[in-house]
Amino acid sequence: MSRPDARRVADTLLHYPACFIATHVNPEGDAIGSMLALALALESLGKEVVCYDRHGVPENCRFLPTWERVVTELPASVPPLVVYVDADRLERCDLSVDHFPHAETFARIDHHTSSAPDPGPALVDTKAAAAGELIFELLPLLDVTLTTDIATCLQTALMVDTGRFSYTNTTPKTHRIAADLLAAGADVPAIVDWIWGSVKFEATRLLGAALSTLQRSADDRIAWAVLRNEDFLSVNATPEDTEGIIDAVRAVRGVEVAALFSEKRGTIRVSLRSRGHVDVAALARQFDGGGHVKAAGLTFDGTMENAICAVIGAIGAALEDQP
Amino acid sequence: MSRPDARRVADTLLHYPACFIATHVNPEGDAIGSMLALALALESLGKEVVCYDRHGVPENCRFLPTWERVVTELPASVPPLVVYVDADRLERCDLSVDHFPHAETFARIDHHTSSAPDPGPALVDTKAAAAGELIFELLPLLDVTLTTDIATCLQTALMVDTGRFSYTNTTPKTHRIAADLLAAGADVPAIVDWIWGSVKFEATRLLGAALSTLQRSADDRIAWAVLRNEDFLSVNATPEDTEGIIDAVRAVRGVEVAALFSEKRGTIRVSLRSRGHVDVAALARQFDGGGHVKAAGLTFDGTMENAICAVIGAIGAALEDQP
Repeated sequence: MSRPDARRVADTLLHYPACFIATHVNPEGDAIGSMLALALALESLGKEVVCYDRHGVPENCRFLPTWERVVTELPASVPPLVVYVDADRLERCDLSVDHFPHAETFARIDHHTSSAPDPGPALVDTKAAAAGELIFELLPLLDVTLTTDIATCLQTALMVDTGRFSYTNTTPKTHRIAADLLAAGADVPAIVDWIWGSVKFEATRLLGAALSTLQRSADDRIAWAVLRNEDFLSVNATPEDTEGIIDAVRAVRGVEVAALFSEKRGTIRVSLRSRGHVDVAALARQFDGGGHVKAAGLTFDGTMENAICAVIGAIGAALEDQP
Repeated sequence: MSRPDARRVADTLLHYPACFIATHVNPEGDAIGSMLALALALESLGKEVVCYDRHGVPENCRFLPTWERVVTELPASVPPLVVYVDADRLERCDLSVDHFPHAETFARIDHHTSSAPDPGPALVDTKAAAAGELIFELLPLLDVTLTTDIATCLQTALMVDTGRFSYTNTTPKTHRIAADLLAAGADVPAIVDWIWGSVKFEATRLLGAALSTLQRSADDRIAWAVLRNEDFLSVNATPEDTEGIIDAVRAVRGVEVAALFSEKRGTIRVSLRSRGHVDVAALARQFDGGGHVKAAGLTFDGTMENAICAVIGAIGAALEDQP
């Protein structure tokens, strides 16, 4: 039942008495949850573990068991086993093999497609909804018992990367793992409270400012919102606080393309989301922007009024080409 | 493995060639999803089924397979088997046994505590996260194959009543059922798009108006938002459009008590949410309101300024009594 690559990674982890674990920059619940779950598992076997993330633990993950131990600086002495989790290569962790002159083995546990050959044993499954699924599969191979702390870390990983079991990466296996994690005592109320119930005051005010400007096209298929410099200033918000606003615009009934126009030092940043047939990446490319078919962005040099006119016009034209 | 009450309800359903199914007034995804799943199951056995809801199918459920067949008026002739789903008694469906002079059997499938003895066979499990879990358990007893349409109806029931597997009613069993429903082809993208991605334009604008007024106490433990008559008028919104606003206030980092002050024909409606130790039902009772420990409400006769002053003052006092 267990896969040869999982066995190989497990044997590597079992071989070394100490281990250095890193995860990707700008980490979220899957990165931190998977790293901490693996650390707790290895520590239950008596091993020493150092956890590293270049950017540290984001505020909404500061409830995860033992989150405080994550270091943001490379220690003077690193164990000979370097493991990177939820990252396709060490560079995603703002690291490279050169940072580890005394390393003997580099192991990778991940669900992203690789952009380079792996330097050592790798447990990679691009169909896994989260890196946490792979850590879960390693536990029996390590002969580690699922504790409530490990379960909370892994359930966080699953819930974050699947949008609470809503994204298309969620599989029957994801739900079966979640069932086992819940049975082991995963603290879902804490996860929900921290991850989805810990929005910055400034971000909420900015959301209010944006949605107050909500407009839509005559046929209801396009909706957009506008944020001006003064909106950021009046609520003391930063560009990062715009995260999530486009989703609220996209969620309006009947909307096929959502746009957020956000003023930033003289230029207009435009975020685009599609939930119909319009390819917003192609649309963004008309303005030298880019992105994915369903989520893209561009920067417009000019006034807000010109940006709205040009981009909404282009979206309207794209919709006209659709059934 | 199967329970005697489940067997008894299944045998009753198998006994009759036709069946009338009702669900509770103001139905949501669990009510409609469970009713339609049961109807589809019985129809696959060649039975005739009438589905009834006093208020019809809400807009965000109008993607569920065969939703159009739900009637809002009692037909002239009703089959002798009357089944009510997700309701503790017929009165929750705005019906009573008197409406069915020719009925032979009344069967109930539900996860609420009963307020009256059941008039017939009943499959009731208050630990079930959704009525849909109970319909799922009936399928093998009816010898019905799980189709993609039934799976979509039941997955909707589960996702709505568990807040996408986030509420404390979610059990390992809920996730195991979800795994089976997903494997059977439940259309989760459609569910998410319709249930969570179909917000009224007016409601989104009203959310913007409310969050633009967001304030918090000096210690960050109280946050509140205000909606005035003109906010409703300017965006053509109704009091129903306020749904969800209090959750956005409650989600602000550090908030222990959230309040929404909403002007309505000369009085002020106040919604309260707690996510700390404050009992907001007790707080609401100070103003002749009421509710639950974590969610309560009250009506204030007076100006908005007086309402804010009195209620925020009372919340502050309640918080001072807390650790």
